[in-house]
Amino acid sequence: MILATPAYSEEPRSPQRGRPRDASRDDALRQAALEVMAEVGYRALTMDAVAARARAGKATIYRRWESKLDLVIDTCTQLASQNLATPDTGSLAEDLREFLNSFAAFLSGPIGKAAQALVGELPHEPELAAAFRETFLISQRDVLRGILERASERGEIRPHAPLGMTVELAGAALIYRLMLTGDPLDRPFVDRVVDQVLMPLVGAQ
Amino acid sequence: MILATPAYSEEPRSPQRGRPRDASRDDALRQAALEVMAEVGYRALTMDAVAARARAGKATIYRRWESKLDLVIDTCTQLASQNLATPDTGSLAEDLREFLNSFAAFLSGPIGKAAQALVGELPHEPELAAAFRETFLISQRDVLRGILERASERGEIRPHAPLGMTVELAGAALIYRLMLTGDPLDRPFVDRVVDQVLMPLVGAQ
Repeated sequence: MILATPAYSEEPRSPQRGRPRDASRDDALRQAALEVMAEVGYRALTMDAVAARARAGKATIYRRWESKLDLVIDTCTQLASQNLATPDTGSLAEDLREFLNSFAAFLSGPIGKAAQALVGELPHEPELAAAFRETFLISQRDVLRGILERASERGEIRPHAPLGMTVELAGAALIYRLMLTGDPLDRPFVDRVVDQVLMPLVGAQ
Repeated sequence: MILATPAYSEEPRSPQRGRPRDASRDDALRQAALEVMAEVGYRALTMDAVAARARAGKATIYRRWESKLDLVIDTCTQLASQNLATPDTGSLAEDLREFLNSFAAFLSGPIGKAAQALVGELPHEPELAAAFRETFLISQRDVLRGILERASERGEIRPHAPLGMTVELAGAALIYRLMLTGDPLDRPFVDRVVDQVLMPLVGAQ
């Protein structure tokens, strides 16, 4: 039985134990988890490596997250919700352009690398897969659905437009470049997706 | 110095050393590599595990491929070239449907799982990434380009159709379902991709 090893005592316990956790410290730990995952992948990620990257003790991490799976799921959830634009410019094409540019920028940073590192694990880690889809895929899908719904109310959508497929393809187009082809995920590409694909498929003539 | 360990002597050397290698044996070894990769991923794949799966000696494998990277690249190359339909039915919609159904079936088997396991490694393994793109992505892209070119000669393509984007999206749509969303990669989905997306984007009115 091991009690109070050095690893578990580097931070003195606060007398106010009900106090909310330090949110900026949590963010720094999530950022470290993301960077380690981007570098070595999910399987090779260790709590030790995250602790070292964040210059924290391992106990600090285990006090917040029970396991590496917990940490990674919470990291995906928090970062996905913080980083997606939800434009409402009054124009379908402009909303699509603004959202997809923000999603492309988001994917081009460490979260995109971390997401790529997770993809190979999804078939083997059902809990991780569920969380990954919930945060990473469904959050961008819901922003796109909102954009199309508002455009529909403004009369900017053609009758019988394939809305579900269009939303799916927008995500697919960006993630395929990010993870598979390695071709640039930049503004000219987003412009082509919007002007050559999405607007022709759903926009009113 | 190690000479003729048991691992290196399980197959007697043939007196006809210039004889071509046994192609069906090579295929069985590649199939084993694919299955192991689908299960454990590229990083955790070992020549030992492939040998055990194929009930071969490790020497048999090292005689054919210098390294795990060699084996995996050769496996992708061979399997990609063997499994893609190249339909030429005289109808754009039918060619697209037939090719994408064959690609979906191909992706739904062990090669899709193996490809998914490789995706997380692509940023860290440039040689593997180049081979993966060359075999897995470019071979399907080239079939689609051929289908669109023949359709164009028959007058089935609208003027100024976004051919490059359409080819990219067809691959993206299937691989996004396979690797990211986990939604079914079946005939109804292929029909929707062809009828709701590809034909409206490129087909003559």
